[in-house]
Amino acid sequence: MRNKSVTVGLLQQSRNKSLEQNLEATIHEIKESAKKGAQIICLQELFRSRYFCQSENSNAFQLSETIPGPTTNVLSNLAKELEVVIISPVFEKRTEGIYHNSAVVIDADGSIVGSYRKMHIPDDPYFYEKFYFTPGDKGFKSFPTRYGRVGILICWDQWFPEAARLVALSGAQFIFYPTAIGYHESDAIELNRQVAAWETIQKSHAIANGIFLASVNRVGKEDNLTFWGRSFVCDPFGEIIAQAGSNVSENLVVECDLLKIEQTRQDWPFLRDRRVDAYQKLAQLYNDPNS
Amino acid sequence: MRNKSVTVGLLQQSRNKSLEQNLEATIHEIKESAKKGAQIICLQELFRSRYFCQSENSNAFQLSETIPGPTTNVLSNLAKELEVVIISPVFEKRTEGIYHNSAVVIDADGSIVGSYRKMHIPDDPYFYEKFYFTPGDKGFKSFPTRYGRVGILICWDQWFPEAARLVALSGAQFIFYPTAIGYHESDAIELNRQVAAWETIQKSHAIANGIFLASVNRVGKEDNLTFWGRSFVCDPFGEIIAQAGSNVSENLVVECDLLKIEQTRQDWPFLRDRRVDAYQKLAQLYNDPNS
Repeated sequence: MRNKSVTVGLLQQSRNKSLEQNLEATIHEIKESAKKGAQIICLQELFRSRYFCQSENSNAFQLSETIPGPTTNVLSNLAKELEVVIISPVFEKRTEGIYHNSAVVIDADGSIVGSYRKMHIPDDPYFYEKFYFTPGDKGFKSFPTRYGRVGILICWDQWFPEAARLVALSGAQFIFYPTAIGYHESDAIELNRQVAAWETIQKSHAIANGIFLASVNRVGKEDNLTFWGRSFVCDPFGEIIAQAGSNVSENLVVECDLLKIEQTRQDWPFLRDRRVDAYQKLAQLYNDPNS
Repeated sequence: MRNKSVTVGLLQQSRNKSLEQNLEATIHEIKESAKKGAQIICLQELFRSRYFCQSENSNAFQLSETIPGPTTNVLSNLAKELEVVIISPVFEKRTEGIYHNSAVVIDADGSIVGSYRKMHIPDDPYFYEKFYFTPGDKGFKSFPTRYGRVGILICWDQWFPEAARLVALSGAQFIFYPTAIGYHESDAIELNRQVAAWETIQKSHAIANGIFLASVNRVGKEDNLTFWGRSFVCDPFGEIIAQAGSNVSENLVVECDLLKIEQTRQDWPFLRDRRVDAYQKLAQLYNDPNS
């Protein structure tokens, strides 16, 4: 394990209405990132399309596909050719009437290691995800790949420390968060506060768990939302190693020294001291003080 | 509940070797803070003494006392006189051989509402707390007081999102963290990183739970450690409202608008979406991937 480093690649992109052009642009950037040494490459949430959840429209279900399916077939071949791991979000059609906001882990030999189905589903103005996505039923876990053990969580999951903890406890060395977070014009005045909270809570997951964390957001204005980019990688002490801009398509290729995980956890031994005898009520929605 | 604001007071102090002088100085500052409008006043961890856990020395058990006991008797009278809530850390002697790092909540009528016993006990060079303190057995909860429902966690608890979550789910409007955190000279180069992580993780608890959070640290050099102060209050979106300096005794008196709790939780409805059906494994130390 001495000097074991892994290089991760994040693709922060803007999207147009053509699924094919979006895929082509993504393939191009995966190749560019692989050339620069990226070994685990993570794409943004729902990377094939624009962020269609800004309204509730049944036609958008046409964008869904199976796993494996057209997207994973193309990316499996690419992963094998480039010998890279690809984490690919998919609008998953599981069967007629059950759709998930998912992400697939494709290993460097092209095989599908497994997939994650977004567990926490938001529903806010212009983020009507509860209309489209059944909450995931596969739980929180991580996946072994040629270059390291990766956990995946998606966007809204980011705000739940339980999710990050469970992924870390499953042995992950990295948590990847494919994301689509942005703001409505009427909220522009709040942007700095929102970005600060978004970065703070994610850095806190890295700190609490002593784990590398990578968040991959999109950029550009789509209909009512402007996505704020700022994709980043932070180390197991929550320090940002690299961060993309807020309004440009940009790839990050970031070397991560896996020894930092053990070093950080030995210096700040939080995992040693968890009070697992006293956490049962975390499995309740609320512990009503007056009942 | 319209315009309901509560003013909290934090006492960040240095300590000398006289328990009596430390108590007198604290009483003086409680009175000063009450004059300035503080309604809930929180003292720093183990406020009666210097931070004795820098070595393992049985003589230090002489500093312990019962609850109720000398410290709570004095502070109960003071709370009643000033009509303030006082959160008072106590090195608790429960019986011969069982000692806790505790904090008592004294209501504005002088009555003891309850106490918390530190659940997560650190053990690091110069923080040999596992030698002195039996881990708490009262769990994570909050306490109703005249001015609001307060949760208490102590120092090392700060690094565990589970603790903050459970206190919030018990109905707390505030989490108070009496604290004694500092650095050894040999780590001075790491100070900024450590302070940043310390602030980040606490702000993240405020964000994840939509709750006011107040952290009260000591200042000054005691033997091998220099305590970094920087006591602060942040709002339910993790924004610091007020913060003390890093090397001066200083009181914070901070007005908190309780309406912000509901407003923040409605805007960022994380508590709505917790996946309590999928959190069971949080009650395990590790979910061994290879077993």
